[in-house]
Amino acid sequence: MLDNDSGNRLGFISQKIVRHRGESQRADSDYVAEECPVALVFNDISHAVMMATPKDLREFAVGFSLTEGIVQKPSEIFELEVMEGCAGIEVRMTISQKSFFELKAKRRALAGRTGCGVCGIESLELLDLCPGKIAAYPEKVMPSASVIERASHSLPGFQSLMHVTGGVHAAAWCSAEGEIIKVFEDVGRHNGLDKLIGFLALQGVEMRNGFVFMSSRASYELVRKVARMNIPMLATISAPTSLAIEIARMAGVSLVSFCRKDGFVEYVV
Amino acid sequence: MLDNDSGNRLGFISQKIVRHRGESQRADSDYVAEECPVALVFNDISHAVMMATPKDLREFAVGFSLTEGIVQKPSEIFELEVMEGCAGIEVRMTISQKSFFELKAKRRALAGRTGCGVCGIESLELLDLCPGKIAAYPEKVMPSASVIERASHSLPGFQSLMHVTGGVHAAAWCSAEGEIIKVFEDVGRHNGLDKLIGFLALQGVEMRNGFVFMSSRASYELVRKVARMNIPMLATISAPTSLAIEIARMAGVSLVSFCRKDGFVEYVV
Repeated sequence: MLDNDSGNRLGFISQKIVRHRGESQRADSDYVAEECPVALVFNDISHAVMMATPKDLREFAVGFSLTEGIVQKPSEIFELEVMEGCAGIEVRMTISQKSFFELKAKRRALAGRTGCGVCGIESLELLDLCPGKIAAYPEKVMPSASVIERASHSLPGFQSLMHVTGGVHAAAWCSAEGEIIKVFEDVGRHNGLDKLIGFLALQGVEMRNGFVFMSSRASYELVRKVARMNIPMLATISAPTSLAIEIARMAGVSLVSFCRKDGFVEYVV
Repeated sequence: MLDNDSGNRLGFISQKIVRHRGESQRADSDYVAEECPVALVFNDISHAVMMATPKDLREFAVGFSLTEGIVQKPSEIFELEVMEGCAGIEVRMTISQKSFFELKAKRRALAGRTGCGVCGIESLELLDLCPGKIAAYPEKVMPSASVIERASHSLPGFQSLMHVTGGVHAAAWCSAEGEIIKVFEDVGRHNGLDKLIGFLALQGVEMRNGFVFMSSRASYELVRKVARMNIPMLATISAPTSLAIEIARMAGVSLVSFCRKDGFVEYVV
């Protein structure tokens, strides 16, 4: 479905359904979250195809480029074009020669590796399981319960695609006081986070002054992306994984989960 | 944590936490689902690293090999060894020369491609967005509400890792009458499904006579994996994506979602 004002997709489609309830069946229609292959192309080289909700793809591509370390700042992306193709969407970017050279070197390292997939420095680095410490803070950031309560209370009001489809995650940017500033939604939680980070970077928002609040679980790649942007805290509604806790510890990111209106859980070293 | 009886990991760790509730804070401990890099190595070539719960990895590796089309039947895997390494786990398999030759050819095609990531026959095939029809049935499989009610009612009793950690998905094999036969759990829904399919294949279970019931949403890769095994139906507790519906239609897989004790939703062409 297209948003008629902007030509942007809405991120959902209308779908014929049959509702089954006991012995009764009723033909109806419902809205379903769009999932679509999105190819990220850098200087004519397709680097990755992500299954994403085709909405806010400019922010998505900028955020992905930053959190995956392909560029260091949005200004290293000189051009960005979203093109609908026959089988999916391409986001074509022109990036600086320096960034592109490094991307090609990384791809060569990936292609040349065989044998052990997880041991040794090289593949560990590729998995990025040992992130650098985020820029130092005087002390670890830990919110009061009222900050989490505030964010938890207001998040549902921003989850428009979730209300319509029931099938997407939300990534929210919050002030240190727990006020929600901006929310993006996607079928993939990491895509939602990339959209949010792309937006923040394009707007020049200082990411050290707030935190990310996700409607999902906390898995390792969310912590990794947050750490890469020097964001001090990740809060999630659902459970973390062991690796998310471990990577948050290594990076110095505060991780709090099971965030609800009446409390949250902090993970201790 | 190790299961002392079998040496198998339990899939969770004990973690120190602080519970925040209003102004009060209480030191406590909780169990967290394990997430760990698992490298799948075929004839000494590392093919993929998956972030998975390190439990039931034999079933996982067999299932992945089948649903990703690397082997056609478990007997094409001659040896399988699970090895704990310094940075993760390796599952080392020896597969038939024929299967390995085809895998190498596929990897060469992947490595050689540049430019458009989603258009054109070749990359469409690699994404596997056009699955073949599953083996023909006299008519489309559509459960009665009582079948879904039965499965929905009993699933929580099988979700032992979910009860302990709150952070994993369940993949269940059900008889056509909705009786749950076997359940696997994982931080990744596709991994849970691969574990289940590996188990069914190793046990020689006829997959045309039951259905898969997932505690998660329905995304495209779940439908793709189900279709590849000629399983007639995928039922999920949460919402489907647009691509899951589309691929189910193409493959002839019955997809039902929002499966609850009091009903479910069928998606119509």
